Amino acid sequence: MDLKEKIRVIPDFPEKGVRFKDITPLLQDKNAFKYTIDKMKELAESLNADVVVGPEARGFIFGTPLSYAMNVGFVPVRKPGKLPAEVIRQEYSLEYGKDSLEMHKDAIKPGQRVVIIDDLLATGGTLLSTAKLVEKLGGEVVGIFFLIELTYLKGRDTLKGYNVESLIKF
Amino acid sequence: MDLKEKIRVIPDFPEKGVRFKDITPLLQDKNAFKYTIDKMKELAESLNADVVVGPEARGFIFGTPLSYAMNVGFVPVRKPGKLPAEVIRQEYSLEYGKDSLEMHKDAIKPGQRVVIIDDLLATGGTLLSTAKLVEKLGGEVVGIFFLIELTYLKGRDTLKGYNVESLIKF
Repeated sequence: MDLKEKIRVIPDFPEKGVRFKDITPLLQDKNAFKYTIDKMKELAESLNADVVVGPEARGFIFGTPLSYAMNVGFVPVRKPGKLPAEVIRQEYSLEYGKDSLEMHKDAIKPGQRVVIIDDLLATGGTLLSTAKLVEKLGGEVVGIFFLIELTYLKGRDTLKGYNVESLIKF
Repeated sequence: MDLKEKIRVIPDFPEKGVRFKDITPLLQDKNAFKYTIDKMKELAESLNADVVVGPEARGFIFGTPLSYAMNVGFVPVRKPGKLPAEVIRQEYSLEYGKDSLEMHKDAIKPGQRVVIIDDLLATGGTLLSTAKLVEKLGGEVVGIFFLIELTYLKGRDTLKGYNVESLIKF
């Protein structure tokens, strides 16, 4: 299946000059969505992953069906102030300023084999922070998977040393 | 399975006096998560639902695995400015002021049988708005399902006339 056909490119969103990759046609197409999750499952099972981690909000869209399909647990990574129990935090740089991500301290057990999922690889900053949160808790990041990779932003360089997989490249 | 045991109650979060219902232990427990999705699937299939709708962000956590499990499409409902194509919008009242939700105009086809999923039923305001968005596009809301219902907030009154189901009651 050519998944790229299921992505709608919206010019000038959210700002002039950006060609936004809209994943909603893929989500609405039951066959394309199932194919996507099953592909990610195949990759994750080949790495013996035993937990799925996804950053909010679009990491949840692919991460939770993958964890259901694999029958493993799911761990959400969220913006500050959203997770209610004790957290660890990782800062990352934005074009202007900084932001950070949080994960519950009891989310990962040492030695767990973790696959991280998000919809889109741009510069890779949030995903590198997510990987660092997993490693702080003693987890091993065995793969970082994306539906879409914007190759011209060179996010793979940011994630050097990790096993990065993407199903669609622009 | 007693799903209630998998919910961690956090006192005074996000503010004093609130007993926050933390769903992350359930998500981390592969059996509890699978049981939750399979229960929702059973309910949704008994209503012949053919599309799943979920509001961001925690509606994604249960909505996308349900759509995968049922092999139907998924439609995200988002805060303003997040969806890139043409949208319809629905306002709702908060304790202080207003907020609104958006859905893509091409998200639902007239006559589709829609099940709406979220993690928690509190006052029901966001879910009523979600139901109205579906109906504006000609969809039929056959069910609104929650993992958790806070019965003392009487969200069922707000959603009167809809088929409301929840797996855990507090």
